[in-house]
Amino acid sequence: MLSGVVIERLCIAGVGLIGGSLALALRAAGAVGEVVGTGRRSEPLERALALGVLDRYELEPARAAEGADVVLLGVPLGAMRPVLAALRPGLGEGTVITDVGSAKGCVVADAEAVFGALPARFVPAHPIAGTEKSGVEAAFPTLFRGRRVILTPDRHTDGEALATVRGLWSAAGAEVVEMGVTAHDRMLAGTSHLPHLLAFGLVDMLARSPDHDEIFQYAAGGFRDFTRIASSDPVMWRDVCLGNREALLAALAAYREDLERLTAMVAAADGDALEAVFRNAKRTRDRHLHIFEK
Amino acid sequence: MLSGVVIERLCIAGVGLIGGSLALALRAAGAVGEVVGTGRRSEPLERALALGVLDRYELEPARAAEGADVVLLGVPLGAMRPVLAALRPGLGEGTVITDVGSAKGCVVADAEAVFGALPARFVPAHPIAGTEKSGVEAAFPTLFRGRRVILTPDRHTDGEALATVRGLWSAAGAEVVEMGVTAHDRMLAGTSHLPHLLAFGLVDMLARSPDHDEIFQYAAGGFRDFTRIASSDPVMWRDVCLGNREALLAALAAYREDLERLTAMVAAADGDALEAVFRNAKRTRDRHLHIFEK
Repeated sequence: MLSGVVIERLCIAGVGLIGGSLALALRAAGAVGEVVGTGRRSEPLERALALGVLDRYELEPARAAEGADVVLLGVPLGAMRPVLAALRPGLGEGTVITDVGSAKGCVVADAEAVFGALPARFVPAHPIAGTEKSGVEAAFPTLFRGRRVILTPDRHTDGEALATVRGLWSAAGAEVVEMGVTAHDRMLAGTSHLPHLLAFGLVDMLARSPDHDEIFQYAAGGFRDFTRIASSDPVMWRDVCLGNREALLAALAAYREDLERLTAMVAAADGDALEAVFRNAKRTRDRHLHIFEK
Repeated sequence: MLSGVVIERLCIAGVGLIGGSLALALRAAGAVGEVVGTGRRSEPLERALALGVLDRYELEPARAAEGADVVLLGVPLGAMRPVLAALRPGLGEGTVITDVGSAKGCVVADAEAVFGALPARFVPAHPIAGTEKSGVEAAFPTLFRGRRVILTPDRHTDGEALATVRGLWSAAGAEVVEMGVTAHDRMLAGTSHLPHLLAFGLVDMLARSPDHDEIFQYAAGGFRDFTRIASSDPVMWRDVCLGNREALLAALAAYREDLERLTAMVAAADGDALEAVFRNAKRTRDRHLHIFEK
């Protein structure tokens, strides 16, 4: 797990599952010197101190950012803009900025709003990892091992800053890839944001039925897994839906059209058509199973 | 695991994951004498013999049923009617019949079509257990331990037959409950049949997109779990969709209406409304988590 990258001082704004796990992973790899946290409330930061995630914290973001080599934004997408603005006075000329947001177009827009343009040393990033749990208590150092992290640099991105962020995630055990902001947002709308909305929606619908308590009594393993993501953090996912609104609306439109088609097949008792859809889905998923099992 | 029930001879028509696991569980509990299988093809029956699931098999259903105390239908819903008709000549006066179909109204209709009315010794049943795998190779004796099995007897059901089927599932470690056919079909449409259709539909939609190979490369754990049920047996689920058509169409209509509502929230960037839905879903799911973790 050793890597050449040693970050003398890492500042984490928003010390939750992702930021906390990254700090633990970098510590385990000997790839970080001091880890400074910042956040709205001292209580979770105190817990992060007690868990060995942080060396110290500052409630004032700009103070936390002072002297940091890398500032990592671990806050929900909806807090990116104000937190970036609050960090700004503490950022040095050479400070590398990165984030872990699940959508990237909105983060770039937030950076543009705060700095006028995406700073060359801001490298947007999205680790494809997580659990339905949230908060620093859920953090663990191997969360990113073997997982992909997508970076979405543009042609103005500073090469050194990109190498630092690549090195940071590699040190945490992740496989780093690059793609464009639009491709990222469209892809993740289909494989992550839409499924979250569908799962939240199903549980909410069943919860509002008159016999909801009985209904859940007879739910099985398939339901448990299908709805696992409906136990995710509501604020984070509200922000993802708003942050990746355009791509999510496109995915929703396509899916609703498909559901109309499936409904027509059921209504017409068209077994052949249903079986063809199910076969294609099973074949595709089984073919890609090795990806999930890494 | 010992129970008072000992079935001298159990006939299983359709020896797959469910029928195979039940045979293994009953053997482990010392609750069955001889297990005789029947099916369309000898190959899976030979494998079931080799795995110790069956003592012997007959390709002719009526011959397999001869002298059996209990005949268990483990075939997909679409095969219930022809298999019941083929078993019929081998059934004795006292033979108890039961099934493991995921919908119950259609099984009752199949029995009525074959026998004129639901026989008093036919006890419809549905074990709420399974995996996305299928076939006798996937069978294991503890599949039903701590799981619920729903029986849907009616007022004409023979008490002794009901006790036998209850005893059989109890011996396999399951918790047996009773409910009406309509309540069963409506409930399972919401917690099982609709989620399967939604998961199959999502994977099929993504598989048909031009960059589908890349899309699956960036899918994470949430997607893996959400779509696990899309690796289920296409024929079985085609039959469930057709067998529970009415209740599934009602669930689909309600869900599509909800999705329209959620889409409107995203389109209007109504974060408060989205957060309220997500909070309700998370709260409800987390409250019922203990059910899934039994």
